[in-house]
Amino acid sequence: MKVSFLGLGAIGTPMARHVAAKGELTVWNRTAATAHAFASTDRCVVAGTAREAGAASTVVITCLPTSREVDAILGGPDGLLAGMSPGSLLIDCTSGDPASSRRIAATLAERNIAFLDAPVSGGVNGAINGALTVMCGGDDATFARALPALEMFGKKIVLVGPVGAGHALKAVNNAWLATHIWAAAEGLAALTKAGVKPSVALEVINASSGRSNTSENLVPQRVVTGAFPRTFKLALLEKDVAIAAEFIREQRVPSAVTQQVAELFRVARDMLGEEADHVEAVQLIERWSGVEIRG
Amino acid sequence: MKVSFLGLGAIGTPMARHVAAKGELTVWNRTAATAHAFASTDRCVVAGTAREAGAASTVVITCLPTSREVDAILGGPDGLLAGMSPGSLLIDCTSGDPASSRRIAATLAERNIAFLDAPVSGGVNGAINGALTVMCGGDDATFARALPALEMFGKKIVLVGPVGAGHALKAVNNAWLATHIWAAAEGLAALTKAGVKPSVALEVINASSGRSNTSENLVPQRVVTGAFPRTFKLALLEKDVAIAAEFIREQRVPSAVTQQVAELFRVARDMLGEEADHVEAVQLIERWSGVEIRG
Amino acid sequence: MKVSFLGLGAIGTPMARHVAAKGELTVWNRTAATAHAFASTDRCVVAGTAREAGAASTVVITCLPTSREVDAILGGPDGLLAGMSPGSLLIDCTSGDPASSRRIAATLAERNIAFLDAPVSGGVNGAINGALTVMCGGDDATFARALPALEMFGKKIVLVGPVGAGHALKAVNNAWLATHIWAAAEGLAALTKAGVKPSVALEVINASSGRSNTSENLVPQRVVTGAFPRTFKLALLEKDVAIAAEFIREQRVPSAVTQQVAELFRVARDMLGEEADHVEAVQLIERWSGVEIRG
Amino acid sequence: MKVSFLGLGAIGTPMARHVAAKGELTVWNRTAATAHAFASTDRCVVAGTAREAGAASTVVITCLPTSREVDAILGGPDGLLAGMSPGSLLIDCTSGDPASSRRIAATLAERNIAFLDAPVSGGVNGAINGALTVMCGGDDATFARALPALEMFGKKIVLVGPVGAGHALKAVNNAWLATHIWAAAEGLAALTKAGVKPSVALEVINASSGRSNTSENLVPQRVVTGAFPRTFKLALLEKDVAIAAEFIREQRVPSAVTQQVAELFRVARDMLGEEADHVEAVQLIERWSGVEIRG
Repeated sequence: MKVSFLGLGAIGTPMARHVAAKGELTVWNRTAATAHAFASTDRCVVAGTAREAGAASTVVITCLPTSREVDAILGGPDGLLAGMSPGSLLIDCTSGDPASSRRIAATLAERNIAFLDAPVSGGVNGAINGALTVMCGGDDATFARALPALEMFGKKIVLVGPVGAGHALKAVNNAWLATHIWAAAEGLAALTKAGVKPSVALEVINASSGRSNTSENLVPQRVVTGAFPRTFKLALLEKDVAIAAEFIREQRVPSAVTQQVAELFRVARDMLGEEADHVEAVQLIERWSGVEIRG
Repeated sequence: MKVSFLGLGAIGTPMARHVAAKGELTVWNRTAATAHAFASTDRCVVAGTAREAGAASTVVITCLPTSREVDAILGGPDGLLAGMSPGSLLIDCTSGDPASSRRIAATLAERNIAFLDAPVSGGVNGAINGALTVMCGGDDATFARALPALEMFGKKIVLVGPVGAGHALKAVNNAWLATHIWAAAEGLAALTKAGVKPSVALEVINASSGRSNTSENLVPQRVVTGAFPRTFKLALLEKDVAIAAEFIREQRVPSAVTQQVAELFRVARDMLGEEADHVEAVQLIERWSGVEIRG
Repeated sequence: MKVSFLGLGAIGTPMARHVAAKGELTVWNRTAATAHAFASTDRCVVAGTAREAGAASTVVITCLPTSREVDAILGGPDGLLAGMSPGSLLIDCTSGDPASSRRIAATLAERNIAFLDAPVSGGVNGAINGALTVMCGGDDATFARALPALEMFGKKIVLVGPVGAGHALKAVNNAWLATHIWAAAEGLAALTKAGVKPSVALEVINASSGRSNTSENLVPQRVVTGAFPRTFKLALLEKDVAIAAEFIREQRVPSAVTQQVAELFRVARDMLGEEADHVEAVQLIERWSGVEIRG
Repeated sequence: MKVSFLGLGAIGTPMARHVAAKGELTVWNRTAATAHAFASTDRCVVAGTAREAGAASTVVITCLPTSREVDAILGGPDGLLAGMSPGSLLIDCTSGDPASSRRIAATLAERNIAFLDAPVSGGVNGAINGALTVMCGGDDATFARALPALEMFGKKIVLVGPVGAGHALKAVNNAWLATHIWAAAEGLAALTKAGVKPSVALEVINASSGRSNTSENLVPQRVVTGAFPRTFKLALLEKDVAIAAEFIREQRVPSAVTQQVAELFRVARDMLGEEADHVEAVQLIERWSGVEIRG
């Protein structure tokens, strides 16, 4: 099976590695050196332009920072669209936004090219271990066509709704994550100031109704310890919460909490910078409160 | 061990039942008929006034709707304080507020009466099965004195900090619960409108980073099914979120999310009424959005 | 001067009347009967289609509910675009959204048609008295060309920035209005419950730093009296606040307050209906608080 | 008329000066040097303790930062209460909080001392010019007794409701001010980024429905010019918004906007420091947005 893969970032690289091992891979990356470095360890062809990558396979996978970058590599004389043939398939594993995906799908449909949005969750480790969850948006036939490619790196692969639904679901998951982190920080900062040991507070809450993945894993391992490893950028989470906020508003659902969390993460991104990890948002509340949630 | 128990509500009754089975119990309830009904099935003495209940034992347990009711039964000629002896102990299992607890503890200390705030979690089932989690606020010696009584109905019993800390922690747990419910409703209402089946969305999110007790248990069992059983009143959750919001603000921790969730639950309580279950808050967002999160 | 005017609503009708008195007017309205009724009292030609209206004059004015309706009458075989000649000018007096305006302007530019967004403020009375404020977005040359037409109904006519700036400014003005109304209602509901007469509170605040057009005019005349006249629809204000929220977010300005007011007005619109006046938002807070701000 | 005045701060000093000119004044200040400096220019007696000040006159005026400081000088062997006689009157011009005022009034009533909360607005200039607005909370008889003293420095003196109502009204006025400032900053930051000159935006809005004292005076004079004079501390405004938020919540009025503005000003105070002027809150949004609202 021939597959072209565009976007060799932190998640894209291990995903492409699985494709290289199981199919005939063509890669393209904006920074060409990254593609050549990949080719020095993994069996693949390096395309000189997105157009060449689009022409090399009938299944094309994009894995980019945002839908804006997808737009950017689609158009123009050296763009993906100029290379892809009628009847081919574009799978977008970007954590993109639903409205852009619907627009892109409509443009591709005019040329008889199928589209599936297919963002992934599971992080770098999930990508390395071929254990990603893939949330797909599109029709049944497109999903069936995409499945063999997705199975090369995904473990739980689900068609969740029409085009854009994959991106919407990924964004909502991340908005919940962001909300849980912020609410946890507010509560724990106050409890710590009031003389409650954070690890004791978490032990009790994690046996009770307020528990979440955030309280059970993220906060004990990363905040209470002071470790704050950098595994998933705050900037990317901010982008995803903004997508969720936009999506929910577009659906005309009153969403005071999600909108507010989107604004708070915007402030956090501005104050903590592009390199900060998503859990460092907690440090902003710590700073504003004059306390550290440790021990 | 002689114990007086005041407040035979939905949670208090099964708690008192465990005490009756293991100790010498005196009960008092504002509505006397409830106390007499209890005495017809469980071995205990019924006190005519809170004062009598206070005089009957050196360990007194209160389990009332709010700290306001605790205040109300403490004072006056027939109040608890008039009956309790120096050297005795008041354990308050009410989901009260930290500031009131600190004030009550100070008043009791003037008479050499010890105080422990000890709210519980685990719901009616936890109370029936003697499997409650008890979050205690007070000093080590008081905690040690209270432990034998608490072990009659509690399974996980933790001293979390100074007086008020138990109430604070309980309130924060419930504020997280409320936040998770509201954020889940916003996201799922939008996804449902966009053509994503709620059960499919939850299945994916529950394998990902946005998961919580709310997404894993409450929403699948109570919302998606349309069951909405009435197990924990929205009015009580609203009260607890308001306590958390107050507590966090008092600690001077910026808390935009918790404050907002407190306001939203206030609106929900006003619109859904005193008998609504806490998960029915979801129905308010459904109504505002014109969609039901089912299937 | 020949002018075509499309959209004979509550504001558009008196605006068109001024044009009829000073120029050669062609009108078009989706509901044709409205256009014919207008023509029975005012000197004008009634166009059968938007295309005919576009072809009749080199200056075309649209005054519609939202940018969506502008889009709708632009396209298609009988649309405005099919009729307008290269070198002509479209002035959009709709309270539209900046992003749509920029898109429309780009489409028109391909056909050498100029565009100016020119929303108005001043209400029905301002329109009747030819005393509207007109906020224009576009380049200097386009503004100069549009000025003679705008002067027929406008009093204060200002070029505020590039295409979309007029719509953005109108939306921000209305977002401030909405914010002032909501904050006023929260404060006055609480003061009223605490025994302060609303008219006394307003008298004091209106001599102090918290005053606004809302506290000086709207609340005394419409809320305290219980009059609540229907002069400007809540549904339209909700639309404008949503446009402002979208615009501010697009500019990457953290905007917790505007986003939240947008959500609250969305809830208000859902609960109070499409016919409610914008000041009736106060009644929602009154209902939630169990108090009326009167007297 | 004999009057004791406690609290010679920025506003208190010019107020006391008017009293010195029209009555027999005794002053007290925590930092004694300030009182002696005052006495070197104004005719008055300097009290050595608050108790002495309380004993010197039957009308006592306090003008302190918060209700906490009022509490602090009331109690103890050298406190105000120890000096004041039954039948005397305490007028509290502090921008205090309603709940504290009600508590203080109840304590004083036990000793037959009358209480009126009487916060002022008009700033330092208003105080110097004897042109303050005074918002009074108390009963009619107490108000009548206080009036001659209040008329020494106040111009508009209004009894607005029962004890605490003066403080509540002052706090609500300031919460509206804070809300208007924040909303103005969000909108203007975005407009500026979109190419609209702030002074042009304000000129248009100030002829329209979104105008306020903030848009008509504060922003043009202090923000657009870049002047940012320090006339009223952000820290004091933050305190007042927190009082308003607390008061509105206590009255059980859903208040999402006021609560949020309270949190945002808390963050602003933490980030901008104790010396910042209240309008500098705008600079925080400028910083987060990467733009200055100037010109």
